[in-house]
Amino acid sequence: MTEPRRTDVAIIGAGISGLTAARRLTQAGRSVVVLEADDRVGGRTMNLDVADGVITEGGGQWVGPGQDRVLLLLDELGLQTFTTYIAGKSIYHRRGRSKRYDGLIPPLNPLALADFAQLQLRLERMARTVPLDVPWTARRARSWDGVTFGHWLDANARTSEAKAMVTMGFTVTNAEDPHTTSLLVQLARIRGGGGIDHMLNITGGAQESRVVGGTVRIAQRLAEDLGDAVVLDSPVREILQDADGVSVRSARVEVRADRVIVAMSPADADRIHVTPSLPTRRAMLQRRWSSGTESKLFAVYDRPFWREQGLSGQAVSDLPVAQYVVDNSPPDGSVGILLSFLGTAGSGSGQHWPDEILDDPAARRAGFLADLTVLFGPQAATPTAYLEKDWTQERWISGCVGSRAPGSLTQYTDADRRPVGRIHWAGTETATTNQGYLDGAVSAAERAAHEVSTTR
Amino acid sequence: MTEPRRTDVAIIGAGISGLTAARRLTQAGRSVVVLEADDRVGGRTMNLDVADGVITEGGGQWVGPGQDRVLLLLDELGLQTFTTYIAGKSIYHRRGRSKRYDGLIPPLNPLALADFAQLQLRLERMARTVPLDVPWTARRARSWDGVTFGHWLDANARTSEAKAMVTMGFTVTNAEDPHTTSLLVQLARIRGGGGIDHMLNITGGAQESRVVGGTVRIAQRLAEDLGDAVVLDSPVREILQDADGVSVRSARVEVRADRVIVAMSPADADRIHVTPSLPTRRAMLQRRWSSGTESKLFAVYDRPFWREQGLSGQAVSDLPVAQYVVDNSPPDGSVGILLSFLGTAGSGSGQHWPDEILDDPAARRAGFLADLTVLFGPQAATPTAYLEKDWTQERWISGCVGSRAPGSLTQYTDADRRPVGRIHWAGTETATTNQGYLDGAVSAAERAAHEVSTTR
Repeated sequence: MTEPRRTDVAIIGAGISGLTAARRLTQAGRSVVVLEADDRVGGRTMNLDVADGVITEGGGQWVGPGQDRVLLLLDELGLQTFTTYIAGKSIYHRRGRSKRYDGLIPPLNPLALADFAQLQLRLERMARTVPLDVPWTARRARSWDGVTFGHWLDANARTSEAKAMVTMGFTVTNAEDPHTTSLLVQLARIRGGGGIDHMLNITGGAQESRVVGGTVRIAQRLAEDLGDAVVLDSPVREILQDADGVSVRSARVEVRADRVIVAMSPADADRIHVTPSLPTRRAMLQRRWSSGTESKLFAVYDRPFWREQGLSGQAVSDLPVAQYVVDNSPPDGSVGILLSFLGTAGSGSGQHWPDEILDDPAARRAGFLADLTVLFGPQAATPTAYLEKDWTQERWISGCVGSRAPGSLTQYTDADRRPVGRIHWAGTETATTNQGYLDGAVSAAERAAHEVSTTR
Repeated sequence: MTEPRRTDVAIIGAGISGLTAARRLTQAGRSVVVLEADDRVGGRTMNLDVADGVITEGGGQWVGPGQDRVLLLLDELGLQTFTTYIAGKSIYHRRGRSKRYDGLIPPLNPLALADFAQLQLRLERMARTVPLDVPWTARRARSWDGVTFGHWLDANARTSEAKAMVTMGFTVTNAEDPHTTSLLVQLARIRGGGGIDHMLNITGGAQESRVVGGTVRIAQRLAEDLGDAVVLDSPVREILQDADGVSVRSARVEVRADRVIVAMSPADADRIHVTPSLPTRRAMLQRRWSSGTESKLFAVYDRPFWREQGLSGQAVSDLPVAQYVVDNSPPDGSVGILLSFLGTAGSGSGQHWPDEILDDPAARRAGFLADLTVLFGPQAATPTAYLEKDWTQERWISGCVGSRAPGSLTQYTDADRRPVGRIHWAGTETATTNQGYLDGAVSAAERAAHEVSTTR
């Protein structure tokens, strides 16, 4: 190997978090090198080409009010946003019947609606007792961290309809089954995400806006400004700390730096061998981070035909594949795109996807289009294109955000972001507000860059 | 890279499972190549040198009745066993008081004893409804898989003393906190492990015997017979399947074979990039396998002095570090060795080890010896040696056996062992009886070797 490349700060991962950290440090007068395993920047944001310059977003795609750090970054980079399309009626389909509705909450039957309200009230009341930065100090932390969120739901939902609604909302926003995470983790996310309504809402909520050109433009713009400080195709295998600095060894280059920021999910960080060994809590956090499992499915039409029928394109259903659908057309509506999510997870009856849906692309496409046809009529059966993005099959990314296994928030506490000598941690998983969102990726980067700038 | 090495079956991992599979296939007339990432064979069995040829075992070390596959293998290899030392009184220490007792169950107070009995009865009654090979088909599988075992215990234990006892037994045998795994996983292990008494017992149970020279002798003997079919220092990075065969690419060699057996824990298997992509359920199982976290601590004395006082060396306590202690002296008692387990896990009050114990070897040693002194008197304070083996710090092994996160046994069902084209799976994690034990490693290997021999 050639001589190590010298820099003030080495950054591992060219997703939004790593690149934002690099920008902030550069602005503060530090030199940086960003090492990326993949052949592209953007991490869990990426575009899929539809046709004729139209794209749809394969990864994280929404921003909204309260997400100040990412909104300010968009401004700084000169990127434009547009409003997620939600005009008109949405569709609620259950047990073979479709109803149309306005606003956030589908027309559950009155008992289920009351049940949903009491579940929301109780979750938010509990969430208020969970301190944002130190959720493991909540009075009932031990107890809440030892029970799965799904079990809490099973025990406290009185109607299957409300339970299905909460499960769907949870599965879509968290990319995992409510039984895989702890009640405490979920309460901390509710607290840090601005409450359940805000997290689920489009208008006024976390899905209000999209980025023109796709959210991957954030990473691309950041990388353009960083120039050859960004090294692609260079998976990092080793970090070695000593008294004088830190050596970061990747496939293509060795970097010698004063500090390193690891801007990866804890699960992915576990691929890097660290010498001397990481503290036990950090090592185990990495190994017990359960990555979320989600695919995005897209049906593309020559125009957003549902809009002509006064429909928003949003649907909530108990159908086998398309359980949540939203209009994902480009800002000018030049083509129509419907988006749904498919997980390997799913809880309770009706959300365990059969193997053929998970493993056979043709069956998946057919199931998705059949469901869209039930929801939006026969025009939905013949898209001009079908696309999907499966986040369980990436080489360098072990899945969506995910979370800690039950018991491990109280066991490993702040090991997600507590520096280990010269090693600092970024990535949306280490954010305390809007964890799992683009905004969390930015705030975590800024926090890590600040740590590096103020420690010596 | 040079020409690929051709063989009938490539085997990844030179632990007991991989090497046993290699032996069985060789006996059936197949050629094999075993690729091992580490510079030694044995996987999660290994010896630590004490002095003058005396060893103690850093990894899995016990065998017992009902573990037929490993017992037969020991015979076949000409390895001897000896009985775990348990003569004399054991010590039960709680809230500052020590009591001596005989047999398996410590002298809990009568209410706690009754509570322990009802917990055991209920667990074993539930376990009987869990089918060994297909635990996800149990009538209440969904419900049991969505609740943590720790939560079940919290809800059903009536006394803190009985709960502490179950938690300690669970933590020592599973190397994890009861809140990290599901009730269903635990019930399947109880069923497959021959019941709770059998799993916890020394005499007549799973800890009855030890192997002369250490259990790593099993892997060493197997490897001796396999000769240069075993390639060390050769971590596998890629498996590529095509219509004609499978290519296995490791650091030192490429192997071309008809089939491959991956004899690693699901968590470790995730380090290998597979083309074409693994089925989603398999991919996610690997990423959601939560490895167990355990260290073994050893204090070595010039002789097993406790035996002279009529003590077995076994102790159960509520002390900070030494919560379960057992005599681990060599068969001839030429030196005395006391063994305890330390996890990052631990549940409820008193079992969250503080950071300094986890991260500071000097504090850990001091805490361990202080506890041993409480239990066994002042002679315990001055060992001739102190050793430890921390399984969270291995480069190629992500921890002890561990288990699936809640929800994932019903979601991913048999993905642990269902072959994927030419890829077969071994390792104790894929065993249906004695999963997590040495016996499971052997039976899984024999099952995988049989699959390979009978599929074409």
